[in-house]
Amino acid sequence: MDPNCIFCKIVAGDIPCHKLYEDDRVLAFLDVGPLSVGHVLVIPKHHAMQLDELPSEDAAAIGAVLPRLAGAVSAATGTDAYNVLQNNGEAAGQVVMHVHFHLIPKPDDAPGPLDSPDSPGPPGSPGSGLGIDWPAGKLDQDVAKALVEKITAGLGSYESR
Amino acid sequence: MDPNCIFCKIVAGDIPCHKLYEDDRVLAFLDVGPLSVGHVLVIPKHHAMQLDELPSEDAAAIGAVLPRLAGAVSAATGTDAYNVLQNNGEAAGQVVMHVHFHLIPKPDDAPGPLDSPDSPGPPGSPGSGLGIDWPAGKLDQDVAKALVEKITAGLGSYESR
Repeated sequence: MDPNCIFCKIVAGDIPCHKLYEDDRVLAFLDVGPLSVGHVLVIPKHHAMQLDELPSEDAAAIGAVLPRLAGAVSAATGTDAYNVLQNNGEAAGQVVMHVHFHLIPKPDDAPGPLDSPDSPGPPGSPGSGLGIDWPAGKLDQDVAKALVEKITAGLGSYESR
Repeated sequence: MDPNCIFCKIVAGDIPCHKLYEDDRVLAFLDVGPLSVGHVLVIPKHHAMQLDELPSEDAAAIGAVLPRLAGAVSAATGTDAYNVLQNNGEAAGQVVMHVHFHLIPKPDDAPGPLDSPDSPGPPGSPGSGLGIDWPAGKLDQDVAKALVEKITAGLGSYESR
């Protein structure tokens, strides 16, 4: 636990939240700055800044609960489509430095994820959900080979820790 | 397994992939349309269209491997920041209708996630990573109360299945 972390304070009960789910390792609650109605945060109780620093057991516990949380949010909001997003590092848009998964309903009538972010719906009112920009390239075969080698070697060194 | 699903064919070995990791429930490989160098897909072997339809055990198995995969990709690419994204439903940007988690490195020198998607880097070349548009609203207290009631009731009905 990090005494300066707002999510650790929520876990400890020192800051209130709209709690949806809790178990030994996981807490889920409503995001106070929602992108759409039903925007939920799912966090590990264990303090880790990035996902790569989170113990496997805590990440597994979050994974285990995501399907039913997603189902319950869909049922409650009547919105079948949704995005799950987890940002790591400032460059990737992380603001609170404690691992968190966003579960963000994507209403049908909202601008699509590939639509222009210039039309995100009425300003200040949640409803449009996550906007995505997808500047896809093409995988180069030589780059791919080198990456597979490096990444699998890196995974190997994790296994042997 | 769905015989028309491209990811099921990859799991079966009928379509090749640049494999990074495999266990009883999970397969990870390089995305052939990367948003940045080291863009990885992590999928369950079990065919489910959306995360809410995926058995808890499979989702937990994905969760369990995400930290080390993220660590290995960061080490291999030299990029500490990254986004994990999982889209559900066409409205949310899902293209292949088999659950998949994107792990997308976000290079420092790339446009930030809140930068204009009009400047996503050199066209056709991966490198900029995921672009995010974040039209946040403010959580209304009455809406919050109603949502907590509905979502926790929905979770309860999952528990008793």
